[in-house]
Amino acid sequence: MAVSNIRYGAGVTKEVGMDLQNMGAKNVCLMTDKNLSQLPPVEVVMNSLTKNGINFKVYDNVRVEPTDKSFVEAIEFAKRGAFDAYVAVGGGSTIDTCKAANLYASSPDGDFLDYVNDPIGKGKPVTVTLKPLIAVPTTAGTGSETTGVAIFDYEHLKVKTGIASRAIKPTLGIIDPLHTLHMPPRVVANSGFDVLCHALESYTALPYHMRSPCPSNPVNRPAYQGSNPISDVWAIQALQIVAKYLKRAVRNPDDLEARSNMHLASVFAGIGFGNAGVHLCHGMSYPISGLVKMYKAKDYNVDHSLVPHGLSVVLTSPAVFTFTAQMFPERHLETAKILGADIRTAKIKDAGLILADTLRKFLFDLNVDDGLAAIGYSKADIPALVKGTLPQERVTKLAPRPQSEEELSALFEASMKLY
Amino acid sequence: MAVSNIRYGAGVTKEVGMDLQNMGAKNVCLMTDKNLSQLPPVEVVMNSLTKNGINFKVYDNVRVEPTDKSFVEAIEFAKRGAFDAYVAVGGGSTIDTCKAANLYASSPDGDFLDYVNDPIGKGKPVTVTLKPLIAVPTTAGTGSETTGVAIFDYEHLKVKTGIASRAIKPTLGIIDPLHTLHMPPRVVANSGFDVLCHALESYTALPYHMRSPCPSNPVNRPAYQGSNPISDVWAIQALQIVAKYLKRAVRNPDDLEARSNMHLASVFAGIGFGNAGVHLCHGMSYPISGLVKMYKAKDYNVDHSLVPHGLSVVLTSPAVFTFTAQMFPERHLETAKILGADIRTAKIKDAGLILADTLRKFLFDLNVDDGLAAIGYSKADIPALVKGTLPQERVTKLAPRPQSEEELSALFEASMKLY
Ligand SMILES: NC(=O)c1ccc[n+]([C@@H]2O[C@H](COP(=O)([O-])OP(=O)(O)OC[C@H]3O[C@@H](n4cnc5c(N)ncnc54)[C@H](O)[C@@H]3O)[C@@H](O)[C@H]2O)c1
Ligand SMILES: NC(=O)c1ccc[n+]([C@@H]2O[C@H](COP(=O)([O-])OP(=O)(O)OC[C@H]3O[C@@H](n4cnc5c(N)ncnc54)[C@H](O)[C@@H]3O)[C@@H](O)[C@H]2O)c1
Ligand SMILES: [Fe+2]
Ligand SMILES: [Fe+2]
Repeated sequence: MAVSNIRYGAGVTKEVGMDLQNMGAKNVCLMTDKNLSQLPPVEVVMNSLTKNGINFKVYDNVRVEPTDKSFVEAIEFAKRGAFDAYVAVGGGSTIDTCKAANLYASSPDGDFLDYVNDPIGKGKPVTVTLKPLIAVPTTAGTGSETTGVAIFDYEHLKVKTGIASRAIKPTLGIIDPLHTLHMPPRVVANSGFDVLCHALESYTALPYHMRSPCPSNPVNRPAYQGSNPISDVWAIQALQIVAKYLKRAVRNPDDLEARSNMHLASVFAGIGFGNAGVHLCHGMSYPISGLVKMYKAKDYNVDHSLVPHGLSVVLTSPAVFTFTAQMFPERHLETAKILGADIRTAKIKDAGLILADTLRKFLFDLNVDDGLAAIGYSKADIPALVKGTLPQERVTKLAPRPQSEEELSALFEASMKLY
Repeated sequence: MAVSNIRYGAGVTKEVGMDLQNMGAKNVCLMTDKNLSQLPPVEVVMNSLTKNGINFKVYDNVRVEPTDKSFVEAIEFAKRGAFDAYVAVGGGSTIDTCKAANLYASSPDGDFLDYVNDPIGKGKPVTVTLKPLIAVPTTAGTGSETTGVAIFDYEHLKVKTGIASRAIKPTLGIIDPLHTLHMPPRVVANSGFDVLCHALESYTALPYHMRSPCPSNPVNRPAYQGSNPISDVWAIQALQIVAKYLKRAVRNPDDLEARSNMHLASVFAGIGFGNAGVHLCHGMSYPISGLVKMYKAKDYNVDHSLVPHGLSVVLTSPAVFTFTAQMFPERHLETAKILGADIRTAKIKDAGLILADTLRKFLFDLNVDDGLAAIGYSKADIPALVKGTLPQERVTKLAPRPQSEEELSALFEASMKLY
């Protein structure tokens, strides 16, 4: 496993100008979204760049939950600017957009689908050299500052997919918990659910030695290796923090201890899933986001419908872990215990149900919508949801149990209503 | 923090030939020591190189506990060979020697002391580009495969010092627990004590935000940052494994579970201390090793006197943590508990004594020599031991309490006898 550079500490963002100076950057692209461009995290970065005499241009047209179209717009901006370094200030949407901009601006020839994951794109390996990218995450969620992944909604197919290559991993992640104080409650909750699912899915993913095919040459191994003793450490650590701090972080915007810890948990879970991978909650979330109809997410200051990523992954989690538990019931029970279940008299065969109940209670306590039905889906949508899940093999193959189309249908159906 | 690439798994060493092929290496230097050159770990690597058609030369003249002289011999070999990649198969002695060989063969001009830590050497930053180095650790100890540090005994001053630069961090660490099955019991014990001290020292090191001076430009920060929430995870995890598995690993050479876990713990502790740093046990160990007289270490198949590194660090640990506990007593008590102390009725002001007693019992159970006196030192040596500690500021400054010369004397004196 490999881990990016991380700098952690309240206030460390103000050093970003010096970092860029140390890199010799003279012409920097600062990416963010329209909402954040009005908020302190972007201001702190701009001041640091100005103070250190760094020339920069701002791109604040990042789409929250990006699409191929919004990626391409950012790429065009990056190509025109001929930048020698990038700074992304925002959540996963911004960091992912910036990764794509850096990648395609560094590979002027070729088609957008070249690097997009197979089978939707061509999954070509990246051989060009990218510019340095410093990621300053402002949500406590995706862990995108630690991963070589950029996710977008492929509008034509109405399904999320992505680009996965170690080459697009940020050069440095600046984890400054002060930024998390600005997040509204539902952004804290939803990005926290992303952390929760990264941790649960990577901990229950197929173990690295059971993955198949097992390429004989190490260079052909996928980025997602399956669960392993190193990713396990990160997953469990992240889960313990989520159990202890997520509710506090959602409920009290001034609780710096809780929000700082969730910021760290997002890094930990990112390192864990960036090596081990995620599985069904994520695989099934991509059509849940992609097929969104009218749902307006509370606290998301945007003018389009969206199902926030963290919500789209967590809504299926009770059904998913009920389904997967029969493979590694001890691990499922262990995570239920960490999340607060009393397992003293639990039977191991009930591990999945116990974890599912624990998750339902956790979500209920945090006022999560009551299942897929509450965000606008009905039974009639299930075939399309299943169809959108099938091409997500890169992650769904890491589930501890293989899934037939009927089983995927049943998982969506069981997720229509939670409580 | 940054972490090297790590590959973990029983049997993964056989891929090393493919890794080198993937790197385009055509002329490889395989470094090891005389003892290991007769053992399976080296055989497995050689077979893999041969099978993949990689040309290589073997250097098996690594000195166990290297000196400037032994480093220079390896450097000469590396210069003559004009290698395009390195593989180090062995313990810290081999991996450190290989790092130095790679560094100086890549910087043909200049003096040996250029890169050696200030104030013994000039501490010049490394600006040259090194060749890839794959480290295959065969002890469960130093974590050298994860660090940018190479330690040697500077014979002229009879004191250990080193070279510290991110540039010498191995490109890849191959953690293959099968190799640990060949270690004799005292090598398991001593290298395990190194893991124990890496974990305890990095967990109790001065926190990153209390370190001073605090360079305003991040590029001037030392590699050792002080304890921080990320290194803490690694340290505690390593300590839990040491508590659970070290005794089993020493006592039963066939206990693959215990030895595998200790191998992982050495990586975890290495990542932790590689970011946070170590402090007094390590700072004081350098003269303890450097001034060695007649001590012959059991199970070390060498023809010179040596105090194994792990032994040299652990013998002062009861005295050191008694001394440091007043600064962060909760952390000291927490580690005592992990190591098996019953702290239900403990008073926080006794944290240091409780940890010291726990360590003494742990060492006694593992048949460790009864203090510095048992390895040949007497009161009369204390001034020289103190003098050898004073230049080790790079680490001693990370201790939670500053130390006067009198206090250092007292720590050595208190370590003369343990039980
Ligand atoms: N690359 C990866 O490894 C990875 C992993 C998981 C998810 N993702 C992707 O990341 C995206 C989701 O990212 P996200 O959850 O971080 O949220 P986001 O970037 O979509 O932002 C959500 C909303 O919160 C606002 N916001 C962000 N930080 C704020 C702050 N500090 N104060 C006030 N408002 C703030 C934004 O302006 C936006 O309106 C999805 O597209 C998802 O697929 C990527
Ligand atoms: N670079 C770092 O970060 C770092 C950290 C701590 C210590 N060190 C240094 O590392 C050195 C100590 O290294 P070490 O403790 O790993 O031991 P070592 O390399 O000195 O080896 C000790 C002995 O064990 C033998 N041995 C090693 N592996 C074996 C195996 N699998 N089977 C049989 N015999 C085996 C060796 O041949 C040797 O005789 C010291 O010089 C110390 O200062 C470096
Ligand atoms: Fe996610
Ligand atoms: Fe050590």
